Amino acid sequence: MISNPNIILPEPTLRRLPWYLAYVEILKARKVEFVSSTQISRALSVDAAQIAKDLSFLSLRGKTRIGYEVDALAKALSDFLGFRTLHKAFVFGAGSLGRALMHDSGLANYGLDIVAGFDIDCEKIGSTVGDVPIYHMDSLSEMMNRHDATIGILTVPAECAQDTADTAIGEGIRAIWNFTPYRVKVAEGIVMTNTSIYAHLALIYNRLNAES
Amino acid sequence: MISNPNIILPEPTLRRLPWYLAYVEILKARKVEFVSSTQISRALSVDAAQIAKDLSFLSLRGKTRIGYEVDALAKALSDFLGFRTLHKAFVFGAGSLGRALMHDSGLANYGLDIVAGFDIDCEKIGSTVGDVPIYHMDSLSEMMNRHDATIGILTVPAECAQDTADTAIGEGIRAIWNFTPYRVKVAEGIVMTNTSIYAHLALIYNRLNAES
Repeated sequence: MISNPNIILPEPTLRRLPWYLAYVEILKARKVEFVSSTQISRALSVDAAQIAKDLSFLSLRGKTRIGYEVDALAKALSDFLGFRTLHKAFVFGAGSLGRALMHDSGLANYGLDIVAGFDIDCEKIGSTVGDVPIYHMDSLSEMMNRHDATIGILTVPAECAQDTADTAIGEGIRAIWNFTPYRVKVAEGIVMTNTSIYAHLALIYNRLNAES
Repeated sequence: MISNPNIILPEPTLRRLPWYLAYVEILKARKVEFVSSTQISRALSVDAAQIAKDLSFLSLRGKTRIGYEVDALAKALSDFLGFRTLHKAFVFGAGSLGRALMHDSGLANYGLDIVAGFDIDCEKIGSTVGDVPIYHMDSLSEMMNRHDATIGILTVPAECAQDTADTAIGEGIRAIWNFTPYRVKVAEGIVMTNTSIYAHLALIYNRLNAES
C-alpha cells in the first residue's frame, strides 16, 4: 500500500498529482489499460520528465514501452493523495459558504468526512445541513471528544476568523482550511491552507478587464 | 473612481489585496478612522514596504503619520478588485459543488452574479437552486443572447470538463473558473483560473501525515 506518505511533498507536485489522477480516471472509465508519461504529457501539457519525476514519489513503476497500468496508477495516486482514507472535519460557520460545503457530498470521494458544523446563531443550532448536524461553538469540546476531528474548515465572517481558528486549535484541531478572506495566523506545527476564492475572483475580473 | 484597472496586476498582489480589504473592513466595523501600512503589516504579517507597494496600484494616497482613511481605503480596494461591479456568470454542472456555489449568496458581495446553471440531466432542467434557474446545455446559446455572461464556472465531472469549457467559450464565455480536478486547456486570450480544492485537500492530508 502506498498511502500515507510521511514525507513532505513539494506543493507543485501536490498540485499536479490530482491532474494526473483525474486524467487517469477518465482513461479507466474508457477501459484503457496502459498509459505512458508521454501520453499524460500530451493530454495535460505538462513536461514528460516532470511527470516521471512526480510519479517517482509513488512506489509504482511503469513498464518500458508500455507505461503504467491505468487501474494500478489510479489507485496508487488516489491512495497516495489521501483520497481513499476518510479524514474527519468540522465546519466552522454555517453561513452560505459553510452550508454549501456541507451540501457538497462529492468531497467524501476525496477523503473529506464533514462530521459536524458549528455556529453561534441560535436559529441554526440543532438543524442539519445535508446530513451534517449544526452545534453551538460551546459544544466544540464535547464534539472533539466524540469525533476526534483533525481538520477545521473555516467559513465564518472574516472578523471571527482568527478567534475561531484559535479556539478550534485549542480544542485539538490540527489543520485549518481557510475559506475566509482573512489572513489567519497559526502556530508552527499547525497545518494552514487557504482556498482564496475571493482572490481568484479578483484575478478573473482583473484579467477580463485587462483583455477588454 | 478607481475601479476597472486595465493593467494586468501581479498574482501575488491580487492574493494580498483581499487580505488588506478583509482587515480594513474589520477596522471599519469597529469605527476605526485611520490605518497605516505599518499597522496592516503587524496585523497580517506582511512586510510594510510590500503593503505600500501593493497599495500604490490604487490611486489613493495615505497621509504622512496618519495613514489611510479606513472608509476610503475599503471602498478603493473593493472597487479596484472589481467586487463592487456585478459580473454575470453561468455555472456548468448542477451537481453537488455546482449547487453549493449557486446556494452561496455571499459571492454576490464579491461581484459575482450567477444568473443561470446548466446541466444535461433532464431531472435537474427546469428546477432552480437558490434563485438560479437550471437549463439544458442546448439552451446555452439562447441564454448567452439573453444574459451576455462573461464567466463560466466549471463544476462538471472531470471527463466533461474540456468539452464543456470548449462549448462555453464557443458561445462567448471569456473566463473559465475551473473547480474540476481536470487541467482544462484554453486558447490565448481566454482567462483561466483554477480553484484546486482537491489539491488543497491533498496538501492538508500530506502535511498532517508528515507532522504526525
